Amino acid sequence: MQTQAYAAQTAKTPLAPFTIERRAVGPNDVEIDILYCGVCHSDLHTARAEWPGVHFPSVPGHEIVGRVRAVGADVTKHKVGALVGVGCMVDSCRTCPACAVNLEQYCENGFTGTYNGNAMGGDANTYGGYSTAIVVEEHFVLSIKHREDQLAAAAPLLCAGITTWSPLRHWQAGPGKKVGVVGIGGLGHMGIKLAHALGAHVVAFTTSESKREAARALGADEVVISKDPQAMRAHAASFDFILNTVAASHDLDAFTALLKLDGAMTLVGVPEHPHPSPSIGNLLFKRRSIAGSIIGGIQETQEMLDFCAEHDIVSDIEMIAMQDIETAYARMLKSDVKYRFVIDMETLKTA
Amino acid sequence: MQTQAYAAQTAKTPLAPFTIERRAVGPNDVEIDILYCGVCHSDLHTARAEWPGVHFPSVPGHEIVGRVRAVGADVTKHKVGALVGVGCMVDSCRTCPACAVNLEQYCENGFTGTYNGNAMGGDANTYGGYSTAIVVEEHFVLSIKHREDQLAAAAPLLCAGITTWSPLRHWQAGPGKKVGVVGIGGLGHMGIKLAHALGAHVVAFTTSESKREAARALGADEVVISKDPQAMRAHAASFDFILNTVAASHDLDAFTALLKLDGAMTLVGVPEHPHPSPSIGNLLFKRRSIAGSIIGGIQETQEMLDFCAEHDIVSDIEMIAMQDIETAYARMLKSDVKYRFVIDMETLKTA
Repeated sequence: MQTQAYAAQTAKTPLAPFTIERRAVGPNDVEIDILYCGVCHSDLHTARAEWPGVHFPSVPGHEIVGRVRAVGADVTKHKVGALVGVGCMVDSCRTCPACAVNLEQYCENGFTGTYNGNAMGGDANTYGGYSTAIVVEEHFVLSIKHREDQLAAAAPLLCAGITTWSPLRHWQAGPGKKVGVVGIGGLGHMGIKLAHALGAHVVAFTTSESKREAARALGADEVVISKDPQAMRAHAASFDFILNTVAASHDLDAFTALLKLDGAMTLVGVPEHPHPSPSIGNLLFKRRSIAGSIIGGIQETQEMLDFCAEHDIVSDIEMIAMQDIETAYARMLKSDVKYRFVIDMETLKTA
Repeated sequence: MQTQAYAAQTAKTPLAPFTIERRAVGPNDVEIDILYCGVCHSDLHTARAEWPGVHFPSVPGHEIVGRVRAVGADVTKHKVGALVGVGCMVDSCRTCPACAVNLEQYCENGFTGTYNGNAMGGDANTYGGYSTAIVVEEHFVLSIKHREDQLAAAAPLLCAGITTWSPLRHWQAGPGKKVGVVGIGGLGHMGIKLAHALGAHVVAFTTSESKREAARALGADEVVISKDPQAMRAHAASFDFILNTVAASHDLDAFTALLKLDGAMTLVGVPEHPHPSPSIGNLLFKRRSIAGSIIGGIQETQEMLDFCAEHDIVSDIEMIAMQDIETAYARMLKSDVKYRFVIDMETLKTA
């Protein structure tokens, strides 16, 4: 199936129109007419080959919301006309211990990414959501229960939402828990919304005083300027959990010092340059942990989407045309977006 | 009460005979005739003031086994003539959330160390087990159920034993779990024995081929030379838990790569120079953790001592006279001990 897309032909060329071939709908496949696709930092890292193993042409996009256009003979989960989503994964081995417990993101044989998929297994490149349609195995297709007018803003839930939801749930953010969220960007703003909706006492950490009011509006009970040592000390040894969404190299000790006994700080980004080596003493004297987490499994992604639909939670977005992707990337690099760009795919269809 | 001891008068002078004053037995106190005292690396760090906040004169020793000589009017836990132990703590606030859940080692007001105690709260220096007697509040006095001929070898359980037991229990080492122990010294040799007795599949990591047989004799099911990349790779992503007893700066990534999904590596020593900054990618892609732990609470110390008595577990020791402590320190620095020196306190009493 010939499908319109936007692709990077090399790491040095801007994204531009490109026609890709989507596979025919197999018995377990769902063909999706893409309505919206969120713009994730990973898209940019891939398009510019800032990560190793990028295959060109590259069609990014893994925050996909659309409508089912066709289903294979054996599909039971989704019906033609239903609203659905696709996140960061389109396949995994389905048999390893991780897949067996619905944690496909940790598939021992490597999940297949929605784009640049053969970097983690498989033999052909996969093309993502910067396109008018996609064909995905039904297991990896999520149901979207949001209202029609929320669909664009729901798209970033498929990556930014689940990437923060999964660790918040795993480390049991909820009533009676004090939870920190470091960084107020695409991921952090979802972390604040979700931790707040889960009932935790949420403290947002930011380096810029200018983000204070915005963080409160997102649901933070308190906002701490992390450059202010006195403000940080006031929270010493008091957090059950800190979700750290900042990938840039920074001082982790400033945050581990804020964890109480048995508290954990979980990172969801890999820094380009290593963080300064964290203080082991900080860990020992309160049995604290530093951990990592990536996206989330399909089952918990569905739980998150349902929770968000029920609680009227979406991302704060700025809608763009497909043709404006390079401008969006440039602005994203300056953190000039509140808090996620979403592509209206109609702009590609009618181009 | 005038009590014979061995003390460092300054960081530069060898330990030598010294008379200290022990407090009179208060209503909740237990007076203990010290029989044996283990020699911990912390003793040396303190005596040489390699750690900040050391108060001189300093009487080290926190692996104490002895016999009750007298008890205060309100003491109910211990009787005159009973065999008892004292570990790293002789007091804590008893009221903070950590103390309330029997984790006095994480006392929010700072536990009082058995020696150099006012470094962590209190107003007078405390003197440790390199002495003929000690007076300790009954809560911090443990019952020893080992046989009389095991008493010297039981002494290191009070620090080396509980320091490894507490994380092994907290991270649930037991049947069906694959547990690594990094380093085969005073701590590591106890970690191997305890993890084995708890029913885990135990893999010992060492840099020296020469320790292979010794590690197996201690209870390791497998021994891996950590300098051998191929041997390490064979264990990739397979461990539930790794207890890392090596305080010297080293590459943590070599071990985090061996943790399976949700696996944790716990460090029990603070390096003098930071470890190379650990790979965050290693943590993210399997939701792994790096954590820290110190000693253990009084309740779990008693559990460990009872478990060891029941399973006939003691440390492998080399007995020394109090007068030979400087020679022992020198050998300890060269790792020339299998695996713990224990002072026969009779040698101080009869000197």
